[in-house]
Amino acid sequence: MALVKYPDGSYREIGEKNQTKKARNLTKSRLGIDFETAINESNEYYLEKGIAAIYKKPTPVQIVKVDYPARNKARITEAYYKTPSTTDYNGIYRKSYIDFEAKSCKESNFSFERIYEHQIKHLENIYELGGISFIIVEFSTLHEIYILPTPLLTIKHDEALNGGRKSIPYEYFKENGYLVETGFKPRINYLKTVDKIYFEEKKYLKKNDED
Amino acid sequence: MALVKYPDGSYREIGEKNQTKKARNLTKSRLGIDFETAINESNEYYLEKGIAAIYKKPTPVQIVKVDYPARNKARITEAYYKTPSTTDYNGIYRKSYIDFEAKSCKESNFSFERIYEHQIKHLENIYELGGISFIIVEFSTLHEIYILPTPLLTIKHDEALNGGRKSIPYEYFKENGYLVETGFKPRINYLKTVDKIYFEEKKYLKKNDED
Repeated sequence: MALVKYPDGSYREIGEKNQTKKARNLTKSRLGIDFETAINESNEYYLEKGIAAIYKKPTPVQIVKVDYPARNKARITEAYYKTPSTTDYNGIYRKSYIDFEAKSCKESNFSFERIYEHQIKHLENIYELGGISFIIVEFSTLHEIYILPTPLLTIKHDEALNGGRKSIPYEYFKENGYLVETGFKPRINYLKTVDKIYFEEKKYLKKNDED
Repeated sequence: MALVKYPDGSYREIGEKNQTKKARNLTKSRLGIDFETAINESNEYYLEKGIAAIYKKPTPVQIVKVDYPARNKARITEAYYKTPSTTDYNGIYRKSYIDFEAKSCKESNFSFERIYEHQIKHLENIYELGGISFIIVEFSTLHEIYILPTPLLTIKHDEALNGGRKSIPYEYFKENGYLVETGFKPRINYLKTVDKIYFEEKKYLKKNDED
């Protein structure tokens, strides 16, 4: 979401094509749009190559009022943001279900204020059901991206719930997470990291009787 | 989506809790909300029981203008419906990726006008990547629900593209699709049908070198 403050005091969220370059840069730097855009582009690349089908879910909105200024042209005139039930991204890769939340951090830690409790619960549900689930975090000032598998997120989250630190420091990602390679195409080659964690090392996947 | 026409000529889409009973019934019958609600409730049941995590994706909306009448209270004042990129539902079941589109039909056929070309393409992509994908169709006047696996949808769609019938008749669902049981909990036990098709008969799953 790219929000721009207008002279009349209102905020507008607009498609990149309609934005001025200045507004685009402002909102990009502020909201980590660059990171999201790079993940979306990587997903387009994976889809084109027949490697994976992973999509960002639409922003959930509670629509209250719709006008029809012209035939077949519905205009929503009153709506509100809703809390997302799940995570940003999900899809299929190597026949597996994959699900993750993507966040960009300016700070040298990932605060639990950045993610909803029920999103953590959702990632844990996916892990329990045998899926691939994680958070992918960009430390924007360091230009480093890490995948942190759900079982490690759970450990740090449980610590926070029991009076521990309310954030995960960068050092924890560096020591326990998995660095993601960046490049030209795909810009964020996170599925290579997924290969390493879940298919080569076969770690952080739920073991059960069927295995 | 439940749209209600108001005396001022506008349409409002409101949460069921805020709707009058009359409005609720009107919109339910018109838009097949009952079917969608029943699938959502079944998904909640599957989630609670730890059987599967399958969610409906939010309706995609292009947000243009947001006002802040009060602190921390964003109000969207201009937005438009966007064409969905994918299907209504996806998630994980028996460690597999599952993806489907749900439609309710009053007629005794399923018209290809009811589904976007790129949604069919999406279902085909999921099939190619080894996932479980299908359409689930309610024939509301007959009170019958069928799952039609993607490869069968592709056959009928190809026929339509090559000058054939632009819809799939009820009889085709009855002969080639799979009837879904309904009951109290879950109201639509479609995962039992998925068990039969994809795990017992092991049909309509992409075969590849890994198998």
